[in-house]
Amino acid sequence: MKIDVCFSPALYSVYHNPEAIVVVVDVFRATTTMAAAFKNGVRSIRPVATVEEVQEYEAKGWLVGAERNVKRCDFADFGNSPFDYTAEKVAGKDVVFTTTNGTRAITIAKEAYRVVTGAFINLQAVADYCLFHARDVVVLCSGWQDKVNVEDTLFGGALADVLINTGKYESASDAALIARDMWTDNKENLIAYLDPTDHIARLKANHLEDAVPYCLTPDSAIVVPELSMEGETLVLRKVITI
Amino acid sequence: MKIDVCFSPALYSVYHNPEAIVVVVDVFRATTTMAAAFKNGVRSIRPVATVEEVQEYEAKGWLVGAERNVKRCDFADFGNSPFDYTAEKVAGKDVVFTTTNGTRAITIAKEAYRVVTGAFINLQAVADYCLFHARDVVVLCSGWQDKVNVEDTLFGGALADVLINTGKYESASDAALIARDMWTDNKENLIAYLDPTDHIARLKANHLEDAVPYCLTPDSAIVVPELSMEGETLVLRKVITI
Repeated sequence: MKIDVCFSPALYSVYHNPEAIVVVVDVFRATTTMAAAFKNGVRSIRPVATVEEVQEYEAKGWLVGAERNVKRCDFADFGNSPFDYTAEKVAGKDVVFTTTNGTRAITIAKEAYRVVTGAFINLQAVADYCLFHARDVVVLCSGWQDKVNVEDTLFGGALADVLINTGKYESASDAALIARDMWTDNKENLIAYLDPTDHIARLKANHLEDAVPYCLTPDSAIVVPELSMEGETLVLRKVITI
Repeated sequence: MKIDVCFSPALYSVYHNPEAIVVVVDVFRATTTMAAAFKNGVRSIRPVATVEEVQEYEAKGWLVGAERNVKRCDFADFGNSPFDYTAEKVAGKDVVFTTTNGTRAITIAKEAYRVVTGAFINLQAVADYCLFHARDVVVLCSGWQDKVNVEDTLFGGALADVLINTGKYESASDAALIARDMWTDNKENLIAYLDPTDHIARLKANHLEDAVPYCLTPDSAIVVPELSMEGETLVLRKVITI
């Protein structure tokens, strides 16, 4: 089986593999936050593309998370920090969520065999899910407004490394080679490696860097959020709990 | 000033900077071949997108180079090997050239402040050109059918490294950071680093790997092919010779 890494939503058509599991990643912070929310017992997350859609849900009494340009939208119950989605607030609840980049990437991939969300905090759970399904894998990096970013590429490399090290997967393309090399060369030193990147600067400028170590620490959340269509609505639900 | 690296022609609109010099790279082998041809005295190269256009030129008696999927097209005088364009054959001549990926990338970038072609064999000459113009730089990787490749990304990292080391440039984005790290981590070991990549496999399958060491050796050609519009026609001409 093969694992590929698509560095930007703008490249998705080039890496599209309808038979593959697509793992959407937005390390800082949408898919980390989703994994944290499921760990804390959220029942479902509806990823929506626009602020307007979230506001329609909010008007009907839903719990809503909304972020644009790293900041929580004023009207929302939650922003895009994994620390917002505590068990007290989300256990047993349904949440609607929009973020600058991550929810859009989920929407783009919705035609794939399966779509799940991955982050370092649920890396091993996602790897186990891929091995269980025994399918090709495409990691779809959310990036930032279609630009490549380091943190999502690194996650793609980490998942490639875990899967290839089982002996059951190989790199599908140069992109997977690049990502895996980035990961193996820098995995002992992630905070320093990421320090000069665009998104760390963005988080620091908004005093939001508190979540960075949490986002980079593997395997605190043994959950896999999986996408399904319920009527016309995209919904993420947890499919694995150990 | 800033240097950015666009990993694929499919991302060009995201990295487009109309005030920048765009350096189009296709290490294996179009832009290496162009630099070699100018070193050997070719007067001009017309990059064209389609085989049909090249055949129209050929019917009018032009010297033509044409490659698809690494192989020379039957009707062409030259393929896409730098060794095809000897001084005996090209000195003082005008050539029309089409390749699978490289000539298309040139066409995409034609609206930029300046467009030049770069490869390891003219790395320092291109860096000197950028420093002379004192402009932002965007390296446009030709990739392979819009997929990211290792060799063009590495060239982007090499040019970023040379320019940033002058103290006059900084990385414009995470993409430039990724490319520069790839280069600095692997520059002593390029042949081994590239061995598992898609294009090396493609060249080996067609017994064309003879050009690889030549394509990876810096600075054998002190030339910069620069794009201009002559009427409606795109033409590359050499702008620096030392």
